[in-house]
Amino acid sequence: MTPGQNTRVLLASRPEGAPTVANFRIEYGPIPQPADGQLLLRTVYLSLDPYMRSRMSAAKSYAAAMNEGDVMVGATVCRVEASRHPDYQAGEWVLAYTGWQSHALSDGVGLHKLSGMARPSLALGVLGMTGFTAYMGLLEIGQPRAGETVVVAAATGAVGSVVGQIAKLKGCRVVGIAGGAEKCRYAVEELGFDVCLDHRSPDLAAELAAACPQGIDVYFENVGGVVFDAVLPLLNTGARVPLCGLIAQYNATGLPAGPDRSPLLMRTLLTRRIRMQGFIIFDDYASHYPEFLKTMGEWVANGTVRYREDIVSGLENAPQAFIGLLQGHNFGKLIIQVGADE
Amino acid sequence: MTPGQNTRVLLASRPEGAPTVANFRIEYGPIPQPADGQLLLRTVYLSLDPYMRSRMSAAKSYAAAMNEGDVMVGATVCRVEASRHPDYQAGEWVLAYTGWQSHALSDGVGLHKLSGMARPSLALGVLGMTGFTAYMGLLEIGQPRAGETVVVAAATGAVGSVVGQIAKLKGCRVVGIAGGAEKCRYAVEELGFDVCLDHRSPDLAAELAAACPQGIDVYFENVGGVVFDAVLPLLNTGARVPLCGLIAQYNATGLPAGPDRSPLLMRTLLTRRIRMQGFIIFDDYASHYPEFLKTMGEWVANGTVRYREDIVSGLENAPQAFIGLLQGHNFGKLIIQVGADE
Repeated sequence: MTPGQNTRVLLASRPEGAPTVANFRIEYGPIPQPADGQLLLRTVYLSLDPYMRSRMSAAKSYAAAMNEGDVMVGATVCRVEASRHPDYQAGEWVLAYTGWQSHALSDGVGLHKLSGMARPSLALGVLGMTGFTAYMGLLEIGQPRAGETVVVAAATGAVGSVVGQIAKLKGCRVVGIAGGAEKCRYAVEELGFDVCLDHRSPDLAAELAAACPQGIDVYFENVGGVVFDAVLPLLNTGARVPLCGLIAQYNATGLPAGPDRSPLLMRTLLTRRIRMQGFIIFDDYASHYPEFLKTMGEWVANGTVRYREDIVSGLENAPQAFIGLLQGHNFGKLIIQVGADE
Repeated sequence: MTPGQNTRVLLASRPEGAPTVANFRIEYGPIPQPADGQLLLRTVYLSLDPYMRSRMSAAKSYAAAMNEGDVMVGATVCRVEASRHPDYQAGEWVLAYTGWQSHALSDGVGLHKLSGMARPSLALGVLGMTGFTAYMGLLEIGQPRAGETVVVAAATGAVGSVVGQIAKLKGCRVVGIAGGAEKCRYAVEELGFDVCLDHRSPDLAAELAAACPQGIDVYFENVGGVVFDAVLPLLNTGARVPLCGLIAQYNATGLPAGPDRSPLLMRTLLTRRIRMQGFIIFDDYASHYPEFLKTMGEWVANGTVRYREDIVSGLENAPQAFIGLLQGHNFGKLIIQVGADE
């Protein structure tokens, strides 16, 4: 970054399969000046999340795809650098959606003030989209009951870590799946999961069956691929599968080889009376955000729910960090520190 | 059938693929006599339903599989022929689950008296399992709203015909899919569907897209296979898919050739926030049966909901009729008239 300049990361070209740094382009330019009614935002934190991979492709996904040459999209925590807007003053913290850039103009639409939040970066994680996703997906679709078995993929990720902790609060047996011994240890010792399995194990299916002697009542799906293959035979009658993400698929360039297992999937859903439901958090549940924020805010403040942030410094490092996120290299909520807090 | 004898249809051998008459064996024997506390039931009507195919296989499905040599399972409407049970008198009509046989003993457990029903065979169809399945699956999982588009497979079948009529009552656009011109004409002219398409058309996908210009909000799944393939690309964001049956799969001996489309299915559910949910009517919703019976009883009595029965005479004809049911040869609720009404 160059002081006094606006740094922006653009989508240079659509990835074929896994993204590479060549799919991004960094540009520098003058910092824009707010007109009357506008404010200038300076990005302090940028959230990196798997959904961004879908937005890089031309195919319609959650939302409209980006075009080549667009600034990469993303949620940010910003400070108001200068304001010609009556509702904002310089120095205020706001949650915004200004993307991968160091500065942006805003007319105030879509901003949320973060005046009450002790640690503003949490608005991108446990108190923001990822925590809210975990909370609503588990409680509204998963409907966990005490004594049931809940399996959580990507167990130490920004969403999975919160899912597992809430499931423990609800009295469930919680089995996590994560990548590597260190993450598994963290899930059990720090987050309180009952068990955590390494998805790289060649015996994952057998290990998961052993870890779930009563079968699986709720599977919180963030991953797809081999993890789902191990889960499917263990789903109990009446199980619920909140479908939140499929990170194992995002870089796929085509469908896997046959046979076609979609009839097997549908037959399993039918004969075991399973509910599988996709959701997009703010599209489906925006009205629940205040309730979430109150409950989760208390849980975080009193240490009931723990979080971990994986903060990478410098906007220029965002492409490589994002590529690593899709490979599971992060450990906790991945955030780019774009600028100084003060 | 031999007067004075008990006629029974047994599972002789498990089918490989489509059942044949060789998978069934008809046996004759003495009519059993009730002991104290028992009653003798004489079967008047036997319901034939697609789920029975799953019960003929060794694989666990909705319920425990039958064993070779067992009497084929099934719901029946019977008359009490003789009673040594304090709660029943000879001549009463009951709904039972005595299977493919002309006579059976009962201790009263699981019987339901049909004293108030003008036409007792309706307890096997529009006022019984299939009507209840349509009612709860559509209203509880499908949640149709006025102006939405509802697509119903097996549109003139025992379940589909009721789904479509209730969806019309809720103000929906209703598109049926059925086998052949006569069934399609019936669905539109007699049942009031807006459109009905022939699933044998080589252009089904294009015809369905044209019939659903606003996409599909509710797809009531009874079929699977090529019908589901045509539906999937048209499902709207927020669509609901009650998963009631997969008759196109029931005779399959293996999975279809690749590619494996299960990731495509899950990705579609995720990005369009779709709810797909299997259900088994009496397991999931038994407590709603009185509410259903009151509402549907009124709709049937005043002609709001129409029904069609396809009644085949003679228990010995049940195997061939059942084989035809799996091929869509029936037209309306398939029932075997096992004995005289009087």
